[in-house]
Amino acid sequence: MEQIKNPFKGILKDIKGRTACYRQDWNGGFRSGFRILAPTMYIFFASALPVIAFGEQLSKDTDGALSTVETLASTAICGILHSIFGGQPMLILGVAEPTVIMYSYLYNFAKKRDDLGSRLFLAWAGWVCIWTALMLVLLAVFNACAVISRFTRIAGELFGMLITVLFLQEAIKGIVSEFKIPEGENQSQPLYQFQWLYMNGLLGIIFSSGVLFTSLKSRRARSWRYGTGCLRSFIADYGVPLMILVWSALSYAVPGKIPSGVPRRLFSPLPWEANSLHHWTVAKDLLKVPPVYIFAAIVPAIMVAGLYFFDHSVASQMAQQKEFNLKKPSAYHYDMLVLGIMVLVCGLLGLPPSNGVLPQSPMHTKSLAVLKKQLISKKMIKTAKEGIRLQASKSQIYGKMQEVFIQMDHGVHLENLKDAMMRHDGCEGESEGRFDPEKQIDAHLPVRVNEQRVTNLFQSILVGACLGAMPVIKRIPTSVLWGYFAYMAIDSLPGNQFWERILLIFVTPRRRFKVLEGDHASFVELVPFKQIAAFTLFQFVYLLLCFGLTWIPIAGILFPLPFFLLISIREHVLPKLFHPDYLQELDAAEYEEIPGAPHREHNLTYREREVSPSGGDHEEVEEVCDAEILDELTTSWRGELKHRTRSFSDDTFLQASF
Amino acid sequence: MEQIKNPFKGILKDIKGRTACYRQDWNGGFRSGFRILAPTMYIFFASALPVIAFGEQLSKDTDGALSTVETLASTAICGILHSIFGGQPMLILGVAEPTVIMYSYLYNFAKKRDDLGSRLFLAWAGWVCIWTALMLVLLAVFNACAVISRFTRIAGELFGMLITVLFLQEAIKGIVSEFKIPEGENQSQPLYQFQWLYMNGLLGIIFSSGVLFTSLKSRRARSWRYGTGCLRSFIADYGVPLMILVWSALSYAVPGKIPSGVPRRLFSPLPWEANSLHHWTVAKDLLKVPPVYIFAAIVPAIMVAGLYFFDHSVASQMAQQKEFNLKKPSAYHYDMLVLGIMVLVCGLLGLPPSNGVLPQSPMHTKSLAVLKKQLISKKMIKTAKEGIRLQASKSQIYGKMQEVFIQMDHGVHLENLKDAMMRHDGCEGESEGRFDPEKQIDAHLPVRVNEQRVTNLFQSILVGACLGAMPVIKRIPTSVLWGYFAYMAIDSLPGNQFWERILLIFVTPRRRFKVLEGDHASFVELVPFKQIAAFTLFQFVYLLLCFGLTWIPIAGILFPLPFFLLISIREHVLPKLFHPDYLQELDAAEYEEIPGAPHREHNLTYREREVSPSGGDHEEVEEVCDAEILDELTTSWRGELKHRTRSFSDDTFLQASF
Repeated sequence: MEQIKNPFKGILKDIKGRTACYRQDWNGGFRSGFRILAPTMYIFFASALPVIAFGEQLSKDTDGALSTVETLASTAICGILHSIFGGQPMLILGVAEPTVIMYSYLYNFAKKRDDLGSRLFLAWAGWVCIWTALMLVLLAVFNACAVISRFTRIAGELFGMLITVLFLQEAIKGIVSEFKIPEGENQSQPLYQFQWLYMNGLLGIIFSSGVLFTSLKSRRARSWRYGTGCLRSFIADYGVPLMILVWSALSYAVPGKIPSGVPRRLFSPLPWEANSLHHWTVAKDLLKVPPVYIFAAIVPAIMVAGLYFFDHSVASQMAQQKEFNLKKPSAYHYDMLVLGIMVLVCGLLGLPPSNGVLPQSPMHTKSLAVLKKQLISKKMIKTAKEGIRLQASKSQIYGKMQEVFIQMDHGVHLENLKDAMMRHDGCEGESEGRFDPEKQIDAHLPVRVNEQRVTNLFQSILVGACLGAMPVIKRIPTSVLWGYFAYMAIDSLPGNQFWERILLIFVTPRRRFKVLEGDHASFVELVPFKQIAAFTLFQFVYLLLCFGLTWIPIAGILFPLPFFLLISIREHVLPKLFHPDYLQELDAAEYEEIPGAPHREHNLTYREREVSPSGGDHEEVEEVCDAEILDELTTSWRGELKHRTRSFSDDTFLQASF
Repeated sequence: MEQIKNPFKGILKDIKGRTACYRQDWNGGFRSGFRILAPTMYIFFASALPVIAFGEQLSKDTDGALSTVETLASTAICGILHSIFGGQPMLILGVAEPTVIMYSYLYNFAKKRDDLGSRLFLAWAGWVCIWTALMLVLLAVFNACAVISRFTRIAGELFGMLITVLFLQEAIKGIVSEFKIPEGENQSQPLYQFQWLYMNGLLGIIFSSGVLFTSLKSRRARSWRYGTGCLRSFIADYGVPLMILVWSALSYAVPGKIPSGVPRRLFSPLPWEANSLHHWTVAKDLLKVPPVYIFAAIVPAIMVAGLYFFDHSVASQMAQQKEFNLKKPSAYHYDMLVLGIMVLVCGLLGLPPSNGVLPQSPMHTKSLAVLKKQLISKKMIKTAKEGIRLQASKSQIYGKMQEVFIQMDHGVHLENLKDAMMRHDGCEGESEGRFDPEKQIDAHLPVRVNEQRVTNLFQSILVGACLGAMPVIKRIPTSVLWGYFAYMAIDSLPGNQFWERILLIFVTPRRRFKVLEGDHASFVELVPFKQIAAFTLFQFVYLLLCFGLTWIPIAGILFPLPFFLLISIREHVLPKLFHPDYLQELDAAEYEEIPGAPHREHNLTYREREVSPSGGDHEEVEEVCDAEILDELTTSWRGELKHRTRSFSDDTFLQASF
């Protein structure tokens, strides 16, 4: 309870940390130039499309009181506010599924009350937001976010997996719904005759699997063998939006004899139509809400506040995982305060509030890791090549490269590269001792994320621009959206250690050496298989439990509860079931960590770790090319590329940074 | 013209060669036991499904005079005859597309003549067969097949590619046809209303791409990381038939409201129905054909004979490519004689004749290479492990293994394995000098094909059994067939060096080192890229030319002509355009070959060849597992795994063999 005694402590520390790097947050983004567009577009699509889909769901559930216009507006406003005034710019904000569910409950409650009705629904929801905002501010002031440090990898990955499962469920539900008459529609319309309905479903299957398949392929374009590097990069960076465009265009290739509603397309009122405009003036209705309901609003507010507290913090935490090796400090407490203010703003404007979203937030960081690395390695390769041309010694070249690196990254973490360069000289029967700067640099550069605010701001502005582009967006078939949902779910799987452990269970013992041959997390080597299996099974059962909870009608909103419960399970139960060393490997908790613990010795280099157990009779040094390694880094994230040695609570950071 | 002076020379030599190994042809098959089922089933499906499709096409074109019943019967009868009495048992027989086209022309010609009519069509076609048979026998007697030795890789691969393109074209045409009313059907049927037609097309897209995608995936199952080895092997061996079953079953999941003709299914009369029975008695109508037509039949007979001569020989040649490393002799001349007899039999029975087919024939050999290697390596690994257990020296183990190998293979080609074993002792900084029999044996065993007659006989019997199973086969949706056609086309591409050179052109210069890292044909290292590109371009233009020819209505049947023309282009024009050494690398011709030519030195070992040009700073020794390497061998066939040092004309073979 130490935290409660020191109100504002966390917020002040966060503000201090982030103001120190605030100017760099902008400069770092603008300096990247043209290339910043790729992650911006990537995250914009990941952010906008679900918001559009959720808006449609909300529109159905609230009889049109709220729709895509409001979800987009909320996402854009909160996103812009957060990117400018927020703490952690890696965090992406948006209207999420739980918010939609919550607002549906609120609407159904209000509709049935004569003294509220659908007329005062938004005003009452405004009161819920006011209470929620108050609670969030209190949580921020009294440092409640300190609890986030007790969430270990198991909780984060479990939550990430749950979101993945929910997205996949949404995709499947969506495709199934293509075969059905939408709720609340006139069933006798000719459009809903069996043959058109079934045709709509079949087109849905074709479009959604087309989007899914081509998106997954194009995302991997960087490692294609064919095509020029330029083309491959373009496809890898913009392939997914491109595929949505291509499949939407293809959907217009259906013959004219088919009625115009097949394939089904996005439905949304236009933002400049009358029924989209009334919500902006909700604030003046606030006092029309009967007092009893004003206080009754505290009950849903508690639930929303709990939900947002968890969602926002976990999304933020997952965007700042250790292996991303972020250099700038976190701002959990301050961000919670900002969230509180944003919830208030949304409530008063009659918009559903936004909060930190998954899987977009970690996707954002991943996409920026690529960018940063491209920039650094380009410059370093240039330096190294120059050195080679001038026939400089290896030490000299290394010195030069380090200079460049320090200049760009403010860090001194090149030991691995140095080792690799020096070792390269003799021995081991290598026919040519030639030093190839491109390969060496790419393989040995530590992960670096371009931490800045520009992508976040730009993507929020683009989301806002969607409001103006509604007439175009309405042309996207809904089935393309379901395909994109499935893509998002599947694309977020690699790198989730939980998922990789599940897969590991299905690898036959004779094939496990293959896992060891590739890049793999250290736990594979250090923890007995049975322990891995037991731990994974426990996590899987817990996942099923959480997933089951979301199916319960009203209690479903309480699904963050088991995650809080997990904190004490992790602290008190798991250490009794698993050997502490193994637990440390599988789910490192900072509160258990001993400085210089044995597992640190695995933080060698990325691709040089010797593969020993089963196939140890050879050395494996793969050759990699260009940004491909980065793609691998970012799409199949490895748990221990580089443990961050300084935690965000470490003040020495600030000195190193500036 | 030496060949004409020695009639029967080729036939006698072939008979001598094949009788010597005839008993072993049967024993070798039966001894493989249960495992022989996998290649049998694989080739049965590859053989039966196109024949069914061609039968349907024939049925449409001949107003039902000939149908699936006749094409299946012909394939089965000829297949059984060939597997028992034929020379080269690797060759697969079947009714092929050109035969169908030819018979359609014959029917259209006969139908328009009052004194022939569709009544005497089959009798007249019988006369065409009689003349064709005579010509084929004469070609065989006068050793015309000697020309086959002048067909180099360029011709074979060009033809293989043309067949692939034609299969793909058939698949695309098929899918497009799903959107259209079948020719000759009553257009006013309710089934052919727009909505059902379009729905049929959409289902066609879903089923065919489903079959294509899942078949390609399952064929690769052996290298999956997940699932037990047993399951993976099963899927790799039987996955394709299984997928046809699964998708056919899924096609019954369409709701009952859809009319019963959607999705469209195979159409065929049952063999025991009256209109399928009349053709068996065609022989007695032969003399009813007016004499003028009997002699006019010589004209189409010349075309058919030319076509069959080419098709049969090339299919046989492609089933016996050098890299398959076959040990038993070829029998081109004798097989041509047998083909002549079979054409006669088919003609008299009123069946369209069968000939050697592509790509099934090389597919057959490939699938048997897997089998043979599994058998040998299993036994050798057992021997080696026993040796290790008894702590025998490496030389002793090698001696034992060689014994096993010689016993099973009658050859002494283990130098590579020996080298690998011996070299394995010291040096090169390998941490453990442990000898792992499984990996070493798999990596260094030369390619061996289980050359026997059992698979061919069994698959032919199964094709015959299809006649009885027609009521079940009729339940397969046509779209599943189109998907299978596309699968066959795509599956035949890897290993075709022409295809790989086309791909190579699209690899950016900076990525070419990646090609060199993997397994690759020696030409990649030895021939300048521009020469490769020019050669490939020439071949591609020639392919377009041949493909264009198949589109010309009646002359289309003459499409083998440019291949004969290619012989002289290869002999006289190409050597002037390309440096002889490069030409030798790209398209080795035996008539140009100098014993002990420099390119032989690349016949090192399979996976140990050092990668030098661009990324030479490491040693690449991949680890491979079990039958996976074989899969790679057989699905992505490498040009120079092992050049066959003895050609089939080498008589010393016989001494080694028995």
